[in-house]
Amino acid sequence: MALFGSPGKLSGLLLRMGQCVFAASSIGVMVSAHGFFNSTAFCYLVASMGLQVLWSFGLACLDLHALRSKTNLQNPVLVSLFVVGDWVTAILSLAAACSSAGVAVLYSRDLDYCKSPQIPCIRFQASILLAFISWFLLAISSHVAFWLLAAV
Amino acid sequence: MALFGSPGKLSGLLLRMGQCVFAASSIGVMVSAHGFFNSTAFCYLVASMGLQVLWSFGLACLDLHALRSKTNLQNPVLVSLFVVGDWVTAILSLAAACSSAGVAVLYSRDLDYCKSPQIPCIRFQASILLAFISWFLLAISSHVAFWLLAAV
Repeated sequence: MALFGSPGKLSGLLLRMGQCVFAASSIGVMVSAHGFFNSTAFCYLVASMGLQVLWSFGLACLDLHALRSKTNLQNPVLVSLFVVGDWVTAILSLAAACSSAGVAVLYSRDLDYCKSPQIPCIRFQASILLAFISWFLLAISSHVAFWLLAAV
Repeated sequence: MALFGSPGKLSGLLLRMGQCVFAASSIGVMVSAHGFFNSTAFCYLVASMGLQVLWSFGLACLDLHALRSKTNLQNPVLVSLFVVGDWVTAILSLAAACSSAGVAVLYSRDLDYCKSPQIPCIRFQASILLAFISWFLLAISSHVAFWLLAAV
């Protein structure tokens, strides 16, 4: 089957590269924000985006290899591996992005911390936005893999 | 097909009732906690669990009707409706539970608010735990529905 974004296709490779780039930039922005380690949720966001960078980079390499050697990656065993890994990573990423978003909203709306110039709220929010984009791309990949598994 | 938890089966009805009960008790515990409305994330948890109660209760009624009149609910149009509704509700519930968990962890570990007796941290945590259980049951239902849709 040639679904958009399936493993071993050019669209799949682009999705994986997008996940990797957005997750890495989310880590970069968060680490550059002064005092992010004071909140457990922001530390968890960095850890979870790190996991996502590793996973997406590995699968991007696999896609690249399959494209160059014209291998077919769509056998049931490989696809079930992709599905399990994708779902675990996607749920962890969504959980990290949402818990950080909860804390960021608490800072900006409920505690009024953002009025003080020492707390870089803009950087926190930008990092969380990048994490959400990265999660959205991963969600597309994982739905496609799940659909392939059910149809294989 | 007779997958565990598919719509119109007894196991599906039990899953829906479990979602409904856990979401309703999550709302009850949260609303009984003094001062929950000071945090946007906790208000969002109540709203999202309210949506889940409505959705699960509606589908439980539909399952009950299908069981009593022995109707088959597994036609592609109905199943795609279930899939879309389940996924939207599940993602909103997970987002609400995780953002509330981020705030609860911030309260208890980073800001040390829980030492003051005025903040009912135990109730917040119990409500979040119930929300996670309710989300887990909904995730089972939505995966089963997605699998049915791909196999129909």
